[in-house]
Amino acid sequence: MTLPDYSTREPQNLYAPIAYALAAGGKRLRPQLAIIAAQVFGADEEAVLPAAQALEVFHNFTLLHDDVMDHASVRRGRPTVHVKWNENTAILSGDQMLIEAYSHLAQLPADKLPQALVLFNKMATGVCEGQQLDMDFETRNDVTLDDYMRMIEGKTAILLATALQLGAYLAGADDAQQQALFDYGIHLGLAFQIQDDLLDCFGDPETFGKAIGGDIAENKKTFLWLTARERKSNWNTIGRALEDVLADYEQLGVRAAAEQAIADHTQQALACLDALPHNEYTDQLRQLAQRLVGRKV
Amino acid sequence: MTLPDYSTREPQNLYAPIAYALAAGGKRLRPQLAIIAAQVFGADEEAVLPAAQALEVFHNFTLLHDDVMDHASVRRGRPTVHVKWNENTAILSGDQMLIEAYSHLAQLPADKLPQALVLFNKMATGVCEGQQLDMDFETRNDVTLDDYMRMIEGKTAILLATALQLGAYLAGADDAQQQALFDYGIHLGLAFQIQDDLLDCFGDPETFGKAIGGDIAENKKTFLWLTARERKSNWNTIGRALEDVLADYEQLGVRAAAEQAIADHTQQALACLDALPHNEYTDQLRQLAQRLVGRKV
Repeated sequence: MTLPDYSTREPQNLYAPIAYALAAGGKRLRPQLAIIAAQVFGADEEAVLPAAQALEVFHNFTLLHDDVMDHASVRRGRPTVHVKWNENTAILSGDQMLIEAYSHLAQLPADKLPQALVLFNKMATGVCEGQQLDMDFETRNDVTLDDYMRMIEGKTAILLATALQLGAYLAGADDAQQQALFDYGIHLGLAFQIQDDLLDCFGDPETFGKAIGGDIAENKKTFLWLTARERKSNWNTIGRALEDVLADYEQLGVRAAAEQAIADHTQQALACLDALPHNEYTDQLRQLAQRLVGRKV
Repeated sequence: MTLPDYSTREPQNLYAPIAYALAAGGKRLRPQLAIIAAQVFGADEEAVLPAAQALEVFHNFTLLHDDVMDHASVRRGRPTVHVKWNENTAILSGDQMLIEAYSHLAQLPADKLPQALVLFNKMATGVCEGQQLDMDFETRNDVTLDDYMRMIEGKTAILLATALQLGAYLAGADDAQQQALFDYGIHLGLAFQIQDDLLDCFGDPETFGKAIGGDIAENKKTFLWLTARERKSNWNTIGRALEDVLADYEQLGVRAAAEQAIADHTQQALACLDALPHNEYTDQLRQLAQRLVGRKV
């Protein structure tokens, strides 16, 4: 999948940050999921290209604005847009990225566009709602594990699920098949996010790429934090040494609970694939889910 | 035109600021223009409602994010969203408003949606580009009057023009008729913005509603500032008393030039209407343009 060259558009100060944000690369996981989902039903990349581009530009828009809100200074090893330029640039170029996502979507065939737009809007709304819940959690003391699962479903899983559903829809899959891929994506996304939380605590410092314990240092309410809180009243991480917290996570069975949740959601993701045609593309989705359980970064 | 009640949606912290921003009211000029344009061709409000809602929500989204970027603390007599809540809320709720605009648009009939989305995206891109140029002007010393006209065409006029074009398109008007209304909207928008610049200098303090000379105090590059710069080398406002600047504007013929430009664009707007059916709705558009020339606020 290629994206347009935004670096040559005017005004430069609007489009150069967009080109910069998109050039950072990343895994391009969302377009990949849309394309594989279409291939499951015999369509090719061409059929989903506008949706794949829209999903990738949208994802990078969320990263750009999230980095402003989180005051994050580094993204994929480079200064974030609001650091390299300034905050106003990050806000406005981010807004334009969201509009660009819809401009990509507008390239879809006219008969496919209305439903694709509905799915895309629902996803985008879910992502913003998830981001809001995440921000709310920082100051709330009554967050439950259920609240957390709802939050990561919005913030992470819906985008993966919708990428898959859109790919299937554009390839002519029926409602049940679309739903199966959507559900696969939700479970994949939940497993992915819990794995993220787990690696932050128990990842290999050699391969993880950043310092272990970042979430603990920030007292972030992760899957592990909330599971510990459910198992031990007055549980907290504030002012505690990393080793103590990790020891608690082992003793309270929190680490095991996270590993179990990842395995469960991976299993549920795989089960969703049973409703689909068996071919090399569903095999790819199967492998993707399995690789996830063992990933180190 | 009604808008959904966002105040009851969850999460509250995402939607309450949206409800607040939309409850401030304002003139609802953009939906009005879309509706009148549709009425010119015999359609009713119903036919354009999703587009009218999308335009109004989009307009208020731009105000919300512009206020963050300008560090503006008051909007329509009330604290701005980033003052009443905080900056992150203003960014994220603004993002969601942009998505809501597209969700309204998605309610259009399937046969009308693809072209409406193209027009809307083009407009939204023009508005962001105009806002970027406006920000660029603050630090540029080589801004010409032509640059300025291009900037306000994006920042103000395109939105009015597209509201009219969308209304006409949805009512079944042909391309030439759509173009005539678009052009009317561009000239109306340009006249409107220059009038804004003029009132900031020569408005009646009794009726203007805010202090005279705000643009001068901020050394903003307005139509008047740039015309003065074209007529007198090294012309500037920095550190100068309001009375002196206004006296210059009179002596250099800058005030007269602004009045002439408003009259010219109003005349051009009216001329565009000649290509359209003559009925009570084109009369309303004629009156709207004429009222503009004499407005005090």
